[in-house]
Amino acid sequence: MKNIAYYNGQTGPIETMMVPMNERACYFGDGVYDATCVVNGEPIELLEHIERFYQSAQLVDIKVRMEKEELETLLRGLVRKVEGEILFLYWQATRGVGMRGHPYKNAGEESSLWAFVRPSELKKPDELYTCVTAEDRRFFYCHVKTLNLLPNVLASQKAEEAGCDEAIFHRGERVTECAHSNIHILKDGVLHTAPCDELILPGIARAHLIAACSRLGIQVEEKPFTVEEMMNADEVFFSSSSAPICRVREIDGQPVGGKDGQTFARIRDERWQEIMKQAGAACL
Amino acid sequence: MKNIAYYNGQTGPIETMMVPMNERACYFGDGVYDATCVVNGEPIELLEHIERFYQSAQLVDIKVRMEKEELETLLRGLVRKVEGEILFLYWQATRGVGMRGHPYKNAGEESSLWAFVRPSELKKPDELYTCVTAEDRRFFYCHVKTLNLLPNVLASQKAEEAGCDEAIFHRGERVTECAHSNIHILKDGVLHTAPCDELILPGIARAHLIAACSRLGIQVEEKPFTVEEMMNADEVFFSSSSAPICRVREIDGQPVGGKDGQTFARIRDERWQEIMKQAGAACL
Repeated sequence: MKNIAYYNGQTGPIETMMVPMNERACYFGDGVYDATCVVNGEPIELLEHIERFYQSAQLVDIKVRMEKEELETLLRGLVRKVEGEILFLYWQATRGVGMRGHPYKNAGEESSLWAFVRPSELKKPDELYTCVTAEDRRFFYCHVKTLNLLPNVLASQKAEEAGCDEAIFHRGERVTECAHSNIHILKDGVLHTAPCDELILPGIARAHLIAACSRLGIQVEEKPFTVEEMMNADEVFFSSSSAPICRVREIDGQPVGGKDGQTFARIRDERWQEIMKQAGAACL
Repeated sequence: MKNIAYYNGQTGPIETMMVPMNERACYFGDGVYDATCVVNGEPIELLEHIERFYQSAQLVDIKVRMEKEELETLLRGLVRKVEGEILFLYWQATRGVGMRGHPYKNAGEESSLWAFVRPSELKKPDELYTCVTAEDRRFFYCHVKTLNLLPNVLASQKAEEAGCDEAIFHRGERVTECAHSNIHILKDGVLHTAPCDELILPGIARAHLIAACSRLGIQVEEKPFTVEEMMNADEVFFSSSSAPICRVREIDGQPVGGKDGQTFARIRDERWQEIMKQAGAACL
């Protein structure tokens, strides 16, 4: 199939799938999600994404309607039905179906499970990317992967309209993360990345970048950094499951980075090899 | 009919209506809404709600698929189909249907319009209500009536579990608003209410309360007030279109207000008469 979607046991092409209007996703964004890339049929770091998904659900008091193993089996089954070398695997849990009302004691008996798989691409690690900055006006639940994404939508559109690849959020001077990835800088051979608090998502690609640095003997500082430090960094790069390591050459039209290509390349190669190994692929 | 729902030209009972899974509401909460109470067939302050709805849409760059007059006609038509003395009229615009992706340049051709009408009730003005407080961890778009309502859902559930009627948000010491209403205090005969900035919704019930005070010669201060000031106020009350003026007797288990029933009663009666006049009803 070209793509497939799943909703509470029903499947079909994404474009034809319908859901009840009274889904709490529709009125409140009342749900959490996770997603990863699939390379040669293998969902990259799937178990970690599933683990984070259950954590997100727990943080907003949603009980996922199946156990982790069953979800893994379901997602792998969906992936097998779709053709393509690189796929995007997405799933979400919502608080279910019920007459609209903020408190959820009397919402649906059961949460809903949604998923889809469709062709996609991995952002290539040997290209250079451009970004815009945007004031981070989001809520203080950014450590939870919720469906309340309107500020991310608006920032992504701002990037798109500027012909850029990603929007970098900052709260005042402090850089937090991007509209759909984490952001990191290299300075004097040290990787700086924001700490895991309520202002950023604990990215799985981020965790793997840190682990890659550790294997390479590159020091990592998990501390806040400023917009100015980013603009003056030796290298700037963002990471997500669809963009494992993307080097930034320009932010708001100003050139950035490009001063420590050697260290960047070591991290990039280490991380890329790890992904390719999981996918059983020599290269892409 | 017992209730009715509308989605892009289709109508039916709310419980049976379906929407495309690829609605951007489902993945991003990518939409705005408005709502009001209907009394004796008359949607209270409807034109003001419609005006605010278009403002919300404009603030997040959504173009509503019809003009204001057409929307009014549509909503009044839906209201006429549902039985009941007091109804709840709700409508929302979402950025439409399209394959999931943050930037919306290539989203659906057109935004979607949703609505429903169902039996409801107005919170009575002669009862006393109880509240809990909750740290306001929401985003800085609270002046826009968006579908990103997960923090409101969680706070409302907290209130429900405590057996209370509403949750009062505060950012540190500063009281902002409630999970689904604005909050006001009376002190020494003066009405204090938070100013209209990005931290609160410019409530239509709030605006009418201020106008009622003005008619009554009661001074109004639109300035931030603190949790401590609220706990020590002469009276505390919240307002929304479904709860035009609700006097609070207890917050977090502590007694509050009850020290200026006379001024409260003047405001309440003035406001309630205004609503009843619109509805062409002598009383409820």
